Amino acid sequence: MVENTKVKSDIEIAQEAQLLPIQDIADQLQLTETEWEPYGRYKAKISLDVMDRLKDTKDGKVVLVTSINPTPAGEGKSTVTVGLGQALNKIGKKSVIALREPSLGPSMGMKGGAAGGGYSQVMPMEEINLHFTGDIHAITTANNALSALIDNHIHQGNELNIDTRRIVWKRVIDMNDRALRNVVVGLGGAVQGVPREDGFDITVASEIMAIFCLARNVRDLKERLSRMVVAYDMNKEPVTVKDLGVEGALTLLLKDAIKPNLVQTLENTPALIHGGPFANIAHGCNSVIATKMASKLGDYVVTESGFGADLGAEKFLDIKARYGEIDPSLVVVVATVRALKMHGGVPKDQLEKEDLGALEKGMVNLEKHIETIQSFGLPFVVALNHFVKDTDQEVEYVKKWCAEKGIEVAIAKVWEDGGKGGEELAQKVVDMIDKSENHYKPLYTLDLSLEEKMETIAQKVYGADGVDFSKKAKKQLKEFIDLGWEQLPVCMAKTQYSLSDDPTLLGRPEGFRIQIRELRASIGAGFIVAITGNVMTMPGLPKKPAAMNMDVTDEGKVEGLF
Amino acid sequence: MVENTKVKSDIEIAQEAQLLPIQDIADQLQLTETEWEPYGRYKAKISLDVMDRLKDTKDGKVVLVTSINPTPAGEGKSTVTVGLGQALNKIGKKSVIALREPSLGPSMGMKGGAAGGGYSQVMPMEEINLHFTGDIHAITTANNALSALIDNHIHQGNELNIDTRRIVWKRVIDMNDRALRNVVVGLGGAVQGVPREDGFDITVASEIMAIFCLARNVRDLKERLSRMVVAYDMNKEPVTVKDLGVEGALTLLLKDAIKPNLVQTLENTPALIHGGPFANIAHGCNSVIATKMASKLGDYVVTESGFGADLGAEKFLDIKARYGEIDPSLVVVVATVRALKMHGGVPKDQLEKEDLGALEKGMVNLEKHIETIQSFGLPFVVALNHFVKDTDQEVEYVKKWCAEKGIEVAIAKVWEDGGKGGEELAQKVVDMIDKSENHYKPLYTLDLSLEEKMETIAQKVYGADGVDFSKKAKKQLKEFIDLGWEQLPVCMAKTQYSLSDDPTLLGRPEGFRIQIRELRASIGAGFIVAITGNVMTMPGLPKKPAAMNMDVTDEGKVEGLF
Repeated sequence: MVENTKVKSDIEIAQEAQLLPIQDIADQLQLTETEWEPYGRYKAKISLDVMDRLKDTKDGKVVLVTSINPTPAGEGKSTVTVGLGQALNKIGKKSVIALREPSLGPSMGMKGGAAGGGYSQVMPMEEINLHFTGDIHAITTANNALSALIDNHIHQGNELNIDTRRIVWKRVIDMNDRALRNVVVGLGGAVQGVPREDGFDITVASEIMAIFCLARNVRDLKERLSRMVVAYDMNKEPVTVKDLGVEGALTLLLKDAIKPNLVQTLENTPALIHGGPFANIAHGCNSVIATKMASKLGDYVVTESGFGADLGAEKFLDIKARYGEIDPSLVVVVATVRALKMHGGVPKDQLEKEDLGALEKGMVNLEKHIETIQSFGLPFVVALNHFVKDTDQEVEYVKKWCAEKGIEVAIAKVWEDGGKGGEELAQKVVDMIDKSENHYKPLYTLDLSLEEKMETIAQKVYGADGVDFSKKAKKQLKEFIDLGWEQLPVCMAKTQYSLSDDPTLLGRPEGFRIQIRELRASIGAGFIVAITGNVMTMPGLPKKPAAMNMDVTDEGKVEGLF
Repeated sequence: MVENTKVKSDIEIAQEAQLLPIQDIADQLQLTETEWEPYGRYKAKISLDVMDRLKDTKDGKVVLVTSINPTPAGEGKSTVTVGLGQALNKIGKKSVIALREPSLGPSMGMKGGAAGGGYSQVMPMEEINLHFTGDIHAITTANNALSALIDNHIHQGNELNIDTRRIVWKRVIDMNDRALRNVVVGLGGAVQGVPREDGFDITVASEIMAIFCLARNVRDLKERLSRMVVAYDMNKEPVTVKDLGVEGALTLLLKDAIKPNLVQTLENTPALIHGGPFANIAHGCNSVIATKMASKLGDYVVTESGFGADLGAEKFLDIKARYGEIDPSLVVVVATVRALKMHGGVPKDQLEKEDLGALEKGMVNLEKHIETIQSFGLPFVVALNHFVKDTDQEVEYVKKWCAEKGIEVAIAKVWEDGGKGGEELAQKVVDMIDKSENHYKPLYTLDLSLEEKMETIAQKVYGADGVDFSKKAKKQLKEFIDLGWEQLPVCMAKTQYSLSDDPTLLGRPEGFRIQIRELRASIGAGFIVAITGNVMTMPGLPKKPAAMNMDVTDEGKVEGLF
């Protein structure tokens, strides 16, 4: 095991990067001149016309990167995704990476971005983590235009007879701002609107973000927007965007955002970064459009899903792939020695110590996620994302564990060595796709009842004994069935830290049931959200926000962002 | 007078435009490769490094376009600004236009953009009127990051002892949303923040927008941001951004936005579109940076100010030019036969009828604004913005009126004929600058008291007998003096429709006084706002919002925006 003598920070590595003009990356993808537009020197947007031109081209192989249940130790799923994309290029394959775009809001609170790390980063990281090409601002605008139009409708006479106590559409802001979680709007008298309770979510929690990431084209985007249920009327009937007649305006506000963003990695591998919905109340993957476009532009697409395989991969495979008609070829399951040791009971401050006993104990978490991927009928490779402090013994243990079970595993040193450190993984991915039979199918069919769908996920993916419904959830289940929503897929909102709905139960808990407290209808996105615990859709800032350390020099150099 | 047989709409004209790649416009301005970045095919951002390279270059002549008091008839100040820029090019002068960027929010309510009209438009109009290059989104983000940081500071212990009843910093959104005018935030219990009254303004009303438009560089931007007063503490002492320690973060969020946006007109004349603060509670002009950059890149800069000369030109000349160290060469005062007739008493629905009596009666409004420009020591030209329904007699009357007073006037047919229709105006502007002595100086010196400054503006610009202060304003005046703010310039917030503070008094009212109801301190921007009536900082949507007619076709074509 080689340790770098000097460990550079992500920002130092990024600032030394030799980026190509985005024109060169577009040329590499053989985009025609009219198919892309530059946004600065290192970013571009790609026209959806590309999909028409390439409609008869064979799709590239879609490789989904997922992980064990995340821990505070960090798993590096994005880093492996970027590193694997670079590595596939290094071994002579034409690869394109598809990633989520990060939300700006949280960066004011906690230091750190979401663009990979070490020598496996997408660039330009500062811009990607701030306003980027404005997609999230466009989604904020569309969401809040709808809010303003709803309140205006009520103020101007409320023809649709909207019950102001049953408006389910919330305002959003791309900011961690707890003071906006619960607000009263419309105060100040008759000319200032109608008072009512409201609240703000962070933008990535908007149903528009989920729709943005599931739409196949502009028409599909508009249709999904038109189906969104924003409120219920005095007869408890749903009121939709179509009822308000503003789906065209919302689509208009998204017409440029819907084009995928092209950037490059540190090694000049093309990456599409587009869309980034929450992985609890939504499905947590980059846009269908970006993934499908990447599969037209590359022979291999490397993409990721949110959180662990119990949430992210399940939703990728049951929601995104189903709606997007995406046929994944293989799953990479990322694990780290550190995180496995945490699942084995080691506290965060003792992770640097070798602990083979804890590692052995923690392997069960990985084991369960592997079983989940197998239940979708997909081949997989385990990627052990290597940290410089991992001991040889620990790494060997994981390799041996996999070998004994006939599981392919590769040590990914992509953080330290970029694509070169991922060549073993890349080769295994290619070989496995070539030799494996792929029997991918979603875990459940849509004709099952909502209850049966939730039971299926809870038992097969989480290892639960079953599902219990709160009184409220039972009532909602009945209402949703009456409204004809029984045939939608289910989007589980569960803690990411545990296979169960209790975040403290690490490893592979057994003998537990999943408590469904509440349902939400995301009819535009096309799923029913099942909420199992407190879901935070508006984060707060910490006592010492990262904003206090940020600065720009007179010459424009950024400080304190990473 | 030639009437076009077929009158095309702005959008039809725009869609027929032959735009040059933005590279060609950058080349025309002799920008080096590293000094600009493309944002799409027809937009770019220009680096502030240009100002260093050209610091010893002679400044171009700055021509300020202003108008009589606006009426519902429309004056076409932006159209004349664009047309004059095109016309200067046509007569062989190197001209650059500097304009405000429009706010997206209002477009959801009323049809129509803010990018000139007819054959004198800046392009691409759809993008300029929607998200453009994201500057306004960046300002929204910076404003609301500050709000979140204030509320978080209070929630986390309130070390600065902020009085939650005296937080003057409001949240903003780029949307017409009356329900957000008055809200209560922080509801929901102890972990959701501290409840307090708050409200949202439209983004262009943010003090950050005013600062954005007055800053000379990144350092000045940061310094002004740090001086903003966001609240008062329990001892009634001001709490600033510097006290919170987040001026660096706010500057970081604006680091790209602060670069001027380069676009072109229908005739490929370069235009910088950058910043657009309110013209009542702020100074209503595009950024100092854009105006100064334009004067380095062109021999003539054509720029505009908001509303009529009583508000826009006064603030340009007393605030923007003073802080920006801009030395204007000449003022163009725009009038139309239609608007002059309204000032003469004709209702809007009867404007198409020739009415020389009303026209004669309305000329006093123009006369007063001319006197104002003269009191600043500046040469001027009157531009009669020609509408196709104006009669020959009416046009002749205005020409004769000017001739009798020795006033230079030009008929601008820039809406119908583009730059060609503005050649007479352009030639007069050039001649007048060449032959006139320019004795420009602000109307008042900063050592006058705030009260004296307001008296000066009211008497010399509005023609009022004097200024009265409400009890509240008197109290504030004393407080502001105690806080050491006496030496700041004054920004008057007054109705734009009348020289007085009564919007129904058209023409040239006499024998009136100005009532100052309230003061506001924009310490970062560097002025004291004097509010004379109801100032609307958050518009509402109409009964049938324009949003209901908007659409995007499956192919991405925009409908219903104009």
